[in-house]
Amino acid sequence: MYALAIHGGAGTLPRHEMSASLEREYRAGLQEALQAGSVILERGGRCLDAVEAAVVALENCPLFNAGRGAVFTREGGHELDAALMDGATLTAGAVCGLKRIANPIRLARRVMETSNFLMLSGTGAEEFAREQGFGFVDPGYFRTEARWNQLQRLLSGDASVSPLTISHVGTVGAVALDQQGHLAAATSTGGMTGKRWGRIGDSPIIGAGTYADDRSCAVSATGHGECFIRLAVAHEIAARIRHGGQSLATAAREVVHTELPAIGGDGGIIAVDRNGALCLEFNSQGMFRGSVHAGAQARIAIYPD
Amino acid sequence: MYALAIHGGAGTLPRHEMSASLEREYRAGLQEALQAGSVILERGGRCLDAVEAAVVALENCPLFNAGRGAVFTREGGHELDAALMDGATLTAGAVCGLKRIANPIRLARRVMETSNFLMLSGTGAEEFAREQGFGFVDPGYFRTEARWNQLQRLLSGDASVSPLTISHVGTVGAVALDQQGHLAAATSTGGMTGKRWGRIGDSPIIGAGTYADDRSCAVSATGHGECFIRLAVAHEIAARIRHGGQSLATAAREVVHTELPAIGGDGGIIAVDRNGALCLEFNSQGMFRGSVHAGAQARIAIYPD
Repeated sequence: MYALAIHGGAGTLPRHEMSASLEREYRAGLQEALQAGSVILERGGRCLDAVEAAVVALENCPLFNAGRGAVFTREGGHELDAALMDGATLTAGAVCGLKRIANPIRLARRVMETSNFLMLSGTGAEEFAREQGFGFVDPGYFRTEARWNQLQRLLSGDASVSPLTISHVGTVGAVALDQQGHLAAATSTGGMTGKRWGRIGDSPIIGAGTYADDRSCAVSATGHGECFIRLAVAHEIAARIRHGGQSLATAAREVVHTELPAIGGDGGIIAVDRNGALCLEFNSQGMFRGSVHAGAQARIAIYPD
Repeated sequence: MYALAIHGGAGTLPRHEMSASLEREYRAGLQEALQAGSVILERGGRCLDAVEAAVVALENCPLFNAGRGAVFTREGGHELDAALMDGATLTAGAVCGLKRIANPIRLARRVMETSNFLMLSGTGAEEFAREQGFGFVDPGYFRTEARWNQLQRLLSGDASVSPLTISHVGTVGAVALDQQGHLAAATSTGGMTGKRWGRIGDSPIIGAGTYADDRSCAVSATGHGECFIRLAVAHEIAARIRHGGQSLATAAREVVHTELPAIGGDGGIIAVDRNGALCLEFNSQGMFRGSVHAGAQARIAIYPD
């Protein structure tokens, strides 16, 4: 028994902007990431390795807002955030404000495993990366024309775009249950198009965008980060299961369809509980997502089923 | 009816290092902060104003590890974090990695009230501060000899000190219920002595070191930040009340005396629920703290009752 779910962001492109060929590319990117994680789980590997591998694949795919293809800050740069958590030990690692690390999720894991800290930021986090032997990439590595054009549309005041609708397309994450019965979650993002002032969203905040606890579930979120922080969405779902006796499906539904909309928070979550139940819930037009259970056919979807 | 609690950090000095005169100074600092908050509540002011005023007083007191008197980073500088949350609206503001802002809690509130974001970091947060007309202080403003000596003892490898035991003495926070029945929480800190790599602790993490929700309680934490993040301590206490039907006292006791010790997390919390019940709970040798209810005598304490 194992289970894996991934997401490539909530919000999606409006259907009229999504061509058949672009949709095929997104699906291929999701499929590759799902595969990268599931082969690890299938051969009995650890859930932490599986969520890391899936997220690395999504970071490397230029279509998603994490690693290569991340959105631009208002100043035309990139500031990347990531976190992951081990449900067996409740240990976690997080990084934020990275400008030169190709795979932030790998650095988050290194923070968890080799530093005495949990969360590192900015140039300090990159100094830690250097000491750990991480390679650095040029800022141009992250650049894609599509993201650059999104920033220009935003800065030009195009009323049809908002930093939110643009950015939702792409935060990435993964949750997994492995054959040993352990849970893990991982999330990585470029944040919000046009962000400034060193803004940190929910992805690297343990409890908000990322949480895992073997006693309840593992969650990775995507959406309007500020709202997800205010509700501590990932931990809230875990707490409803652990203390409220709710099922994962009920907990996720109430948080995503009642609590988040009440404060204007659009987006979604993926989650898996200790029994392998998967949940991919969103209140936005769609969510790039994929899931697979041991012995079952993998599923990839973008719009509501 | 109103209620207010403050803390000046868990851990305390060992009793043999605490002279009578030093203890008087700590008590006076706590008393002043309690007074700054309670006069606002007494005249019917907002809980947000009360917790901000109390924390500003503690930031300004050189004895505590926040604002003036903050601990030193490994590089001999200061990096200040703060957050506050409004339980009525679930809005919040947070800042981290500040080097030149005398009262980080004021900036956290400004982030909440005038930016579209919730959490700002580092030089970006200071750029926001400048645009908002905040004054900047020289790094020397934060320096005290006691904190400098703590860093030197740590760097010299003095086995009798650890970054944790040294730093616990001083993170500050406040929680309040106002006469309108609303709850708020605020926390401010210099972090951990000798921290590096842009480390962020639990204080500015909404859900970990700071949380407020009118439906349950307001919490401010102090202690080994990494452990508090892993358990999402402040939100965990709120969730136990809201979803588990626990009293504040039960929720706080289980988290502070069972869950935190299970992962090696020493420290404590202050909290107030919507009925005005106060809770000041710690698993460390002591916690600098104070509390007051409408019409009752203020209480100040350092060691266990």
